[in-house]
Amino acid sequence: MKKERQVFINGKFVPEHEAKVSIYDSALMFGDMVFEMTRSFNKEQFKLQDHLERLYASIKYVHIPIEMSMKEMEEHIYETIDRNDPLFEKDDEHRIMINVSRGLLSLYQDVVGVEAGPNITIADFPLRWTVASMGPLFESGINAVIPSQRAIPASLLEPKVKNRSRMHYLMANIEVSNYAGENNWALLLDPDGFIAEGTGDNFFMVKDGKIITPEPRNILRGVSRKYVMEELSPQLGLPCIEKNIELYDVMTADEAFFTGTPFCILPVTSINSMQIGSGKLGPITKRLLDTWGQNVGVDIIVQIKKFGLSKKPGAMNAPSPYSFKQKK
Amino acid sequence: MKKERQVFINGKFVPEHEAKVSIYDSALMFGDMVFEMTRSFNKEQFKLQDHLERLYASIKYVHIPIEMSMKEMEEHIYETIDRNDPLFEKDDEHRIMINVSRGLLSLYQDVVGVEAGPNITIADFPLRWTVASMGPLFESGINAVIPSQRAIPASLLEPKVKNRSRMHYLMANIEVSNYAGENNWALLLDPDGFIAEGTGDNFFMVKDGKIITPEPRNILRGVSRKYVMEELSPQLGLPCIEKNIELYDVMTADEAFFTGTPFCILPVTSINSMQIGSGKLGPITKRLLDTWGQNVGVDIIVQIKKFGLSKKPGAMNAPSPYSFKQKK
Amino acid sequence: MKKERQVFINGKFVPEHEAKVSIYDSALMFGDMVFEMTRSFNKEQFKLQDHLERLYASIKYVHIPIEMSMKEMEEHIYETIDRNDPLFEKDDEHRIMINVSRGLLSLYQDVVGVEAGPNITIADFPLRWTVASMGPLFESGINAVIPSQRAIPASLLEPKVKNRSRMHYLMANIEVSNYAGENNWALLLDPDGFIAEGTGDNFFMVKDGKIITPEPRNILRGVSRKYVMEELSPQLGLPCIEKNIELYDVMTADEAFFTGTPFCILPVTSINSMQIGSGKLGPITKRLLDTWGQNVGVDIIVQIKKFGLSKKPGAMNAPSPYSFKQKK
Amino acid sequence: MKKERQVFINGKFVPEHEAKVSIYDSALMFGDMVFEMTRSFNKEQFKLQDHLERLYASIKYVHIPIEMSMKEMEEHIYETIDRNDPLFEKDDEHRIMINVSRGLLSLYQDVVGVEAGPNITIADFPLRWTVASMGPLFESGINAVIPSQRAIPASLLEPKVKNRSRMHYLMANIEVSNYAGENNWALLLDPDGFIAEGTGDNFFMVKDGKIITPEPRNILRGVSRKYVMEELSPQLGLPCIEKNIELYDVMTADEAFFTGTPFCILPVTSINSMQIGSGKLGPITKRLLDTWGQNVGVDIIVQIKKFGLSKKPGAMNAPSPYSFKQKK
Amino acid sequence: MKKERQVFINGKFVPEHEAKVSIYDSALMFGDMVFEMTRSFNKEQFKLQDHLERLYASIKYVHIPIEMSMKEMEEHIYETIDRNDPLFEKDDEHRIMINVSRGLLSLYQDVVGVEAGPNITIADFPLRWTVASMGPLFESGINAVIPSQRAIPASLLEPKVKNRSRMHYLMANIEVSNYAGENNWALLLDPDGFIAEGTGDNFFMVKDGKIITPEPRNILRGVSRKYVMEELSPQLGLPCIEKNIELYDVMTADEAFFTGTPFCILPVTSINSMQIGSGKLGPITKRLLDTWGQNVGVDIIVQIKKFGLSKKPGAMNAPSPYSFKQKK
Amino acid sequence: MKKERQVFINGKFVPEHEAKVSIYDSALMFGDMVFEMTRSFNKEQFKLQDHLERLYASIKYVHIPIEMSMKEMEEHIYETIDRNDPLFEKDDEHRIMINVSRGLLSLYQDVVGVEAGPNITIADFPLRWTVASMGPLFESGINAVIPSQRAIPASLLEPKVKNRSRMHYLMANIEVSNYAGENNWALLLDPDGFIAEGTGDNFFMVKDGKIITPEPRNILRGVSRKYVMEELSPQLGLPCIEKNIELYDVMTADEAFFTGTPFCILPVTSINSMQIGSGKLGPITKRLLDTWGQNVGVDIIVQIKKFGLSKKPGAMNAPSPYSFKQKK
Repeated sequence: MKKERQVFINGKFVPEHEAKVSIYDSALMFGDMVFEMTRSFNKEQFKLQDHLERLYASIKYVHIPIEMSMKEMEEHIYETIDRNDPLFEKDDEHRIMINVSRGLLSLYQDVVGVEAGPNITIADFPLRWTVASMGPLFESGINAVIPSQRAIPASLLEPKVKNRSRMHYLMANIEVSNYAGENNWALLLDPDGFIAEGTGDNFFMVKDGKIITPEPRNILRGVSRKYVMEELSPQLGLPCIEKNIELYDVMTADEAFFTGTPFCILPVTSINSMQIGSGKLGPITKRLLDTWGQNVGVDIIVQIKKFGLSKKPGAMNAPSPYSFKQKK
Repeated sequence: MKKERQVFINGKFVPEHEAKVSIYDSALMFGDMVFEMTRSFNKEQFKLQDHLERLYASIKYVHIPIEMSMKEMEEHIYETIDRNDPLFEKDDEHRIMINVSRGLLSLYQDVVGVEAGPNITIADFPLRWTVASMGPLFESGINAVIPSQRAIPASLLEPKVKNRSRMHYLMANIEVSNYAGENNWALLLDPDGFIAEGTGDNFFMVKDGKIITPEPRNILRGVSRKYVMEELSPQLGLPCIEKNIELYDVMTADEAFFTGTPFCILPVTSINSMQIGSGKLGPITKRLLDTWGQNVGVDIIVQIKKFGLSKKPGAMNAPSPYSFKQKK
Repeated sequence: MKKERQVFINGKFVPEHEAKVSIYDSALMFGDMVFEMTRSFNKEQFKLQDHLERLYASIKYVHIPIEMSMKEMEEHIYETIDRNDPLFEKDDEHRIMINVSRGLLSLYQDVVGVEAGPNITIADFPLRWTVASMGPLFESGINAVIPSQRAIPASLLEPKVKNRSRMHYLMANIEVSNYAGENNWALLLDPDGFIAEGTGDNFFMVKDGKIITPEPRNILRGVSRKYVMEELSPQLGLPCIEKNIELYDVMTADEAFFTGTPFCILPVTSINSMQIGSGKLGPITKRLLDTWGQNVGVDIIVQIKKFGLSKKPGAMNAPSPYSFKQKK
Repeated sequence: MKKERQVFINGKFVPEHEAKVSIYDSALMFGDMVFEMTRSFNKEQFKLQDHLERLYASIKYVHIPIEMSMKEMEEHIYETIDRNDPLFEKDDEHRIMINVSRGLLSLYQDVVGVEAGPNITIADFPLRWTVASMGPLFESGINAVIPSQRAIPASLLEPKVKNRSRMHYLMANIEVSNYAGENNWALLLDPDGFIAEGTGDNFFMVKDGKIITPEPRNILRGVSRKYVMEELSPQLGLPCIEKNIELYDVMTADEAFFTGTPFCILPVTSINSMQIGSGKLGPITKRLLDTWGQNVGVDIIVQIKKFGLSKKPGAMNAPSPYSFKQKK
Repeated sequence: MKKERQVFINGKFVPEHEAKVSIYDSALMFGDMVFEMTRSFNKEQFKLQDHLERLYASIKYVHIPIEMSMKEMEEHIYETIDRNDPLFEKDDEHRIMINVSRGLLSLYQDVVGVEAGPNITIADFPLRWTVASMGPLFESGINAVIPSQRAIPASLLEPKVKNRSRMHYLMANIEVSNYAGENNWALLLDPDGFIAEGTGDNFFMVKDGKIITPEPRNILRGVSRKYVMEELSPQLGLPCIEKNIELYDVMTADEAFFTGTPFCILPVTSINSMQIGSGKLGPITKRLLDTWGQNVGVDIIVQIKKFGLSKKPGAMNAPSPYSFKQKK
Repeated sequence: MKKERQVFINGKFVPEHEAKVSIYDSALMFGDMVFEMTRSFNKEQFKLQDHLERLYASIKYVHIPIEMSMKEMEEHIYETIDRNDPLFEKDDEHRIMINVSRGLLSLYQDVVGVEAGPNITIADFPLRWTVASMGPLFESGINAVIPSQRAIPASLLEPKVKNRSRMHYLMANIEVSNYAGENNWALLLDPDGFIAEGTGDNFFMVKDGKIITPEPRNILRGVSRKYVMEELSPQLGLPCIEKNIELYDVMTADEAFFTGTPFCILPVTSINSMQIGSGKLGPITKRLLDTWGQNVGVDIIVQIKKFGLSKKPGAMNAPSPYSFKQKK
């Protein structure tokens, strides 16, 4: 038991393999759960406050009546990290996942032994799981592929609320997995035909020294996205603006990249197989990555490549972190 | 242990309170689970074949690579019923819930003690949980309320696939819970402004002796809906057609009703507080209910009212089966 | 007769109770009338020039061939005020309503005794009628409710033209009157899901010291809105920008308020029952109100509360100025 | 006084030139009035029951709380006709206009001498006013012109409710008045690009012996339309169906026509200047007109042409009944 | 010269390699050309009248002022065939292409030696060019792939007019050429998410013995489509209806197929890699093909396979008839 | 032969009247051709680099696999000018047209004597052809007319790619040619109701000293547009911004104008017959024109008027450069 990571559930710690949700929970009935996923740099949580604020906005938006304050939530997160850190490898990072669901639907409240009310879960697992296969992408870059699946507009299902009703993201990933070639990641258009986001990452492009990212409408407003916009870009003296972007704009851009909590920044070097700029990690993307790394004291590319080396080969082929092993 | 209902999970039976899904399952990551919920009449499953066919269509659409055949699935369902029936009250009915999820995302496959691959769950609980509070609605009827939340069109998130990414249904329910008065159930418009469906039920109206239901586009094609269209209506010699319906049509209809597996048919007697027809259970709705009951050997209204009497009062106030006990 | 207010109609003055429009007028056939409504502060008309310019833009847009110049119109307004002022209480303000309709449809020109050609009406009534019930809202704030009724986009019916085809505003008000609770005012989304406007007021929110209001597309470009944007905000040294706003943005805002000619500014303290900021009149909203008041020499809150006290109770319950006494 | 037509207003009769609505009435504030316009054949009202049923549906939809029953309304209509008939020429027909408005907004209830509550008006004027200029159109046919102004979809402003918020109809008429040539009438597309309706008439086309009219969605469901569909077509043994129609369909149709209460049926012989069929009154259109005339004992074409002869020339140039005399 | 096929251009015959259009022609400026492409069976033109009627509808819709009558056009077609037939192999079929362009834009009318006015071209080439590579598809079937490129709705660019502004069809083909696997043909959704058509073929599905094809809105109304609907289906006693179809419907269909003039009918055995029915040429599709062949005296599958054998291998790899040899 | 202009085609020069494209070329099959059209000032090509960059972006977007580099293309353009200049009148300007098509569809590659692969054409003709009729428009101004034809949104057919699938532009021109009056040019709305562009020109308006042009979404990003935005406006010290513009904005603007390569800038003095500003060439428009002329050493208005004088009268009546001589 000592060897197994512990997961916080409603004030108690359970072993990771027992960290489960009742089949009668609203999370499993309606995808009715909001969440956050963080990472550390050198074991220091990054932008935890931003994650917590977004989480509490999500909770408010979907009307889950929790009683835990943001402060308490933060304390439980640190407690979870403290419990699990001894089980982490020295060079690993803590990836925290916080789930908040509404709990049992009232009609199921007679199920024996399951309490009513919201469920709060805090898990803590090694970042290397997520990023192990991504090292080569810093060189090759990603080929962003626009699937026929469109982003759902915010007025129908609010993506700014980080929620678990995301079947359409999976459908996009499955669609893109049918494309020929490698390193294809889905990049969704919204119903107006504007670039929205990846299925777990935000999109940026660079044109004439300006950093441009989609308007914050039909997307998750990512914590990494905010960091690039409000801290890294000013630090580099580069303007960073929000604007409606179309395929044509990306095709004629100088550089492009995805941001996401686990990998920070990954270059996008082509879109629908049309080369973007030089077709390689561009200079501004590189400076953003370098500066980020300096700010947090971690060489991001080196770290992810190292995770890849030590990772068991079985899971290494995944081009996207959201893939499945499918039997044909 | 003997006293607790058992849930089938991937070939094994576990006690209901242990019927859970790992927090790393795709079902909890993406709402990536398809499902069915059935009921029995006099303990005989109703239209199980229809449910199974829809389930396998859902599985195919979302590309979950299961190996269990439809035939095997059916056998496991009956096995589950057999195990649990001794724990059911004599007058109760079996409500079966079948869940199929894709399983662990590949990146989480290092989690100790959780197997990769799709997860199949079959639960069996008393129908009375769902319908206990509905008895009075056969008299009062439901006031259908159109919330600002619209149905998501099928090209963005396919409602014909019975899936668990349904946060927007909950959002509609929450919105409608803010309306004044009682017996308000959400009735969603699609983005074109046509009546789509309730958040767990199909909608019908009656006009000049014709039974009319929305085109099967932005809705779940319900098993009860199909039964009304293809069996009950012909049996009564009444035409039943699919057509785009608008609020104006409903307001000027003679009768209206919802269909749903647990309650079969419930009258809708007003819409946005505008009375429909006589404002009472209408004669054609009544004949449909009666004929259904005769066909299956159960007086549907009587049964549901009886369930209400025996149910513990705590859960009885719920106007909709999808409500929560919310702390204010 | 001396005791009755006079209304200017096509160059003549008639007693208010005779200020009427023929049933054959295009205004009553097609909602084919444009208008303005102003107010005074200490009996000085406020921003009359802005109102007149918008009126003449409306007239041009709908192609009403009037011959009266803007200058003449202004003179008639002042003449109307002069005639009526003796009948106003000392502390009251002049609310001017200017209507311009196209007049009789050509086919009705045989109606005896009704002249062809555009009709210009200038009425002058006490502001207290409109605002008497609003005093408490400065404390409680308004709960903005998003109805299913959407704003009509400008390409279909131009809201920037202040016209009388506004049945949909009324439908929104009626829908919101069915919500539980008090102080509910309608706030319309446009068909793209962006916040548009109230049914007689513009919407603003405050976030991180910035004042934000919807893009001037599917809304009336209010005179008070313009005053806040172009005069008050600069006066307070606060940036004020136009931007697409969504429900999520409002929910996470620090403050929000409506602007409208009669009441100037009213705080919006929740939206769809989700609290905004502190849930009270916010500090920036307060400063805007105070500065406005100082600029015009009237304590706006005090004045409206006083109007409420002196107003006959019969009309005081109206939560919105656009309500009706409905018989149930 | 004896020489002037009388208008019923809330139970009293007033001379036509005094039949007016207060400028504070909701009808003039919001276009908040519903209405019907009928006609007689040989002084017998045609399909009055259909008009009344639609009127009461409109009243219900917009929530005007009237107390007058449909039966009483009918009696008042006949009373109005009886009063006015002596003033009608022998060969004229009674065109009845019924208006129902919500009345004073509550805030205006202090206006002296104007009662609160709904206003019901019944006017009765000679049909010749409306149709006098239409005689030649039975030969020339109408050129239907599609303006850039689109019909407003029913979910935003319900055209099935015969209401007075119709500025967009006028805007379409004005736009079409800028087209070169004569006999141009507006024919609106809805936002989906389907033919909707004229600005006061329904559209039909004939193809291969089948009569086709737009789906009853973004249109007024006209009484004449219903008569063609449910009585005339069966009488002639011709199928008549509702279907989405596009410009291409109309251009390749055999015949086309408008229906409207005053003129019954008028041929549409071209669309956007592209000839339809033979470019003349088609045989099926002719049979419909003839049969209608036989059913009601009036030769419709002859009657309208005769009205044109006796009408004062001043109003004869109007290509559409909804035109204005504009001063340039 | 005798050895080269001749092309009819404005009344004269020129050798095929000289059959060209001036770079100043409106066809090359705006894609402003309408056209038809036919085929023969045993050298008898098939449904030529249908093609001509559609052509003249297209000409009328785009307002090209030609003087040639439909009868004359037909004669020129037969004259063209007569001239070229001696150059055709015995077993080949005549594929006629008729182009009608508006001719020189007026501003280019000074170009020396190019006449103003519409240009009419009639070419005649061997059908084998088009179908040589398609033989194997009768066995394997086509995998219909839905690209992100949507069909343009008819209100923006009328696909029922067979015109040459079809860049978006090519873009769809290019997109689909990036899919892994073989036999992928594009199947476009329209902006509403309904199946529209292929990029040169109409789509049908079979479900429960019913033949279903998309509503004739955002598609070309194909001559083969009409033949299947109005002649073959009745001949087989099978109902054939037009209906909005979605991806879900196709996935759960029993059979599916494309129709197109050159190949008549080709089975679609999967969609987005999801198997349809048995995954093979279905029994009803087979009967349609057989009956068609019997009606015209040609075994369609045998003929196309034979064309494939005799065709030079260079062009055989093309999965779609609209592919290009691209240099990478 | 010496007297005829020469056109560059795939490395060779042919006389202009032989500059043609095979009827089997993809350009004529699908409108599958991209292009540029330039002009000179005093025989110096203007912004040729901008045109070339846009051309190569277009080529990339539509995946035409050409081998000619941008540098080589430029050289061929100058070579073409050199060849043709002796045939130009002294005061004329070179209008270069570059066409790039994909070439023969693979199925047509057996056509004798036509090579496979992309076709590159460079033509060079006198600018006077295009602008001869435009001189008077500098005084009268253009009446921008909004047709019912909408611009196709970029996600369906990318207008930023200068391509030849532009039938809808022609349809808009034909529609506007039916308007009464003179100097009517089409101005398209996009499907959102925003001003997009003319059918060969970009739109600008001036309001309160600010120059405003539509967001660069559903339009061609014109070279002249860019010149006004990035060079002329800064030169005049005037702000120039991109913004969504609606009809209402244009109607209330101070000035408006079109930009286009051949004429540079033409005033728009009314929209849908509603006067804009003074109804004459406005002062800022005038300064832009003057400054442009000074920058390039040509008095633009004078030059175009002179072209008009010397042009043969036959083609002078054309209100738009894209008109046709139509036989009625």
